[in-house]
Amino acid sequence: MPELRRDPVVGRWVIISQERSKRPKDLIVEINNDSANVSPACDFCDNRNEYKEIVSLRDPNNKEKFYVMVVPRKNHLLKIEGEVNRKGRGLYDIMEGVGAHELVIETPEHTLNMADLPLEQIDKVFSVFTMRIKELSTDNRLKYVMIYKNYTPDISKNTILHSRSNIMAMPVNPKRVKEKLAGAKKYYEYHERCVFCDIIRQEKEMGVRLIEENDDFVAISAFAGRFPFEMTILPKAHNADFHHCPPEKFRNLSAILKSVLLKLKVGLNDPAYSIVLFSAPFRRGYLSRPSSSLNEDFHWHIEIMPQLTRTAGFEWGSGFYINPMPPEDAAEFLKNIEVGL
Amino acid sequence: MPELRRDPVVGRWVIISQERSKRPKDLIVEINNDSANVSPACDFCDNRNEYKEIVSLRDPNNKEKFYVMVVPRKNHLLKIEGEVNRKGRGLYDIMEGVGAHELVIETPEHTLNMADLPLEQIDKVFSVFTMRIKELSTDNRLKYVMIYKNYTPDISKNTILHSRSNIMAMPVNPKRVKEKLAGAKKYYEYHERCVFCDIIRQEKEMGVRLIEENDDFVAISAFAGRFPFEMTILPKAHNADFHHCPPEKFRNLSAILKSVLLKLKVGLNDPAYSIVLFSAPFRRGYLSRPSSSLNEDFHWHIEIMPQLTRTAGFEWGSGFYINPMPPEDAAEFLKNIEVGL
Repeated sequence: MPELRRDPVVGRWVIISQERSKRPKDLIVEINNDSANVSPACDFCDNRNEYKEIVSLRDPNNKEKFYVMVVPRKNHLLKIEGEVNRKGRGLYDIMEGVGAHELVIETPEHTLNMADLPLEQIDKVFSVFTMRIKELSTDNRLKYVMIYKNYTPDISKNTILHSRSNIMAMPVNPKRVKEKLAGAKKYYEYHERCVFCDIIRQEKEMGVRLIEENDDFVAISAFAGRFPFEMTILPKAHNADFHHCPPEKFRNLSAILKSVLLKLKVGLNDPAYSIVLFSAPFRRGYLSRPSSSLNEDFHWHIEIMPQLTRTAGFEWGSGFYINPMPPEDAAEFLKNIEVGL
Repeated sequence: MPELRRDPVVGRWVIISQERSKRPKDLIVEINNDSANVSPACDFCDNRNEYKEIVSLRDPNNKEKFYVMVVPRKNHLLKIEGEVNRKGRGLYDIMEGVGAHELVIETPEHTLNMADLPLEQIDKVFSVFTMRIKELSTDNRLKYVMIYKNYTPDISKNTILHSRSNIMAMPVNPKRVKEKLAGAKKYYEYHERCVFCDIIRQEKEMGVRLIEENDDFVAISAFAGRFPFEMTILPKAHNADFHHCPPEKFRNLSAILKSVLLKLKVGLNDPAYSIVLFSAPFRRGYLSRPSSSLNEDFHWHIEIMPQLTRTAGFEWGSGFYINPMPPEDAAEFLKNIEVGL
């Protein structure tokens, strides 16, 4: 019998189609290796003068060598100059696309997959994320900093051959962030507990969706995941803001993230994936509630979404996803992949 | 300057990236024509005995000949037998996947694109949709009937070579339907007017996003469309429920739908597209408000989403879409394509 599962935070129902369920192998996509014949070019290395450095972490003994560098994105979608200028056009609302659209170059090497970076390199990436959130949060025009990554192993789709993330600083809170905040608030008002803390507690007890755990973090197969092998990484200590995470915990965060990314790479033939970091909005005053309550009810986390299936009109139209891989089977499969970290 | 636009119903912000804006030609996808070498097989015709007829419209003079037929979907995602059986698993909510998953075979011919069906055939498809919604709404376990279509011209991705739609009858109201209902209600409470009626009025006045209009319907390029060339068809007469649309209006609905689908086919090289029909939930009693209010504030409509761009982690993560085609330019382009209807 297929099962309908409700996401406990945002209330989205997902069809877990156990009878159509596919073995992990059936979901593996063949990578278009036309790329093998393409001589790989890296726009960041070849046209370095076109990328103005915003900030970087460098080797203290050799200032020429960067570890992690932030640059503006070419073809940025938002512009840092100008005013937000909210206006109406009849019943419609518009504002200028003010914001920042930055690229975090996560390694000086031509390593595309974050899974292949050394742990100390990933630690540095998290430090840089924190620096950028803190810096951008001082800009009064901005309300949210969304950090995300779209990885694909297909070289023909990469103009830059470094592992990299995007930072999008926006003058509005994104809809899905608002939905998560609203869901967490509702749960807290009823239970007087954080829904994410409750999820961690229950997942540890049940075990069937727990993929990995260390002293500070858990990685779970999402109970109502929209995509096969969708995972969530959560800090065990309650904390609404990623940029308040103590830096000494970055090593454990790097370890659990690298481990699950390697499991995807090894177990599923190096699939494309997306990662999104969800942290509380830094400008609490704009939310219609006491700002302290958000500290209690929201809990930062990372979503990892492998791209193995295609979504089409039904999912977009209904907000109703179909996942052919029961999350418990996905967890079992990933747990058993040894990556020797 | 890029522009941020807010959807007036669901409140989703979309980045309209005018500077990255592409000419329509740049968005055309080459169709993988491996299909040309594949001998096309139609599972519906070849294995007809495996498809049990649920209902059909037939030629009154030749009962052997069907016009439109509804059959259960093979690999259906929901099952019609059993009880919904809502239950908890710790903090999680689950229910059995009870519902109906049906296929509407929209033509006896091997015509894949609805754009190529005669008008009188499309009229019949709408009659069948109405029949199925009315029939399924008598099942107490069900709350919503979602009708949608995923079209692709790539023959290798079609196991059935007839134009067809899906009917998914569900025991819950889908999240996006609930969001539309909530947004429409909020607008109505403030303005005491239907937001969709206001959209029609404003789009007719402004003209820049109006693609086509007849006595009963308008087709507009969505102001805050998520996808290039996203369109909405709305009935001019206020009406919450598609299945209460007077059948004598089906001809005008068929005409406007066929026209915009032909414009896509001719103007954009026969792209894949999805269509979703949004009608009010038939089981009003379950909504936490007087059921009559929904008659005033909701307005059925059809969303048409061509599949020209790929969505990835950022869109999924943030609910924040990037549309490289300004809706006014899309409207201008489509308006000028003559399809001789």
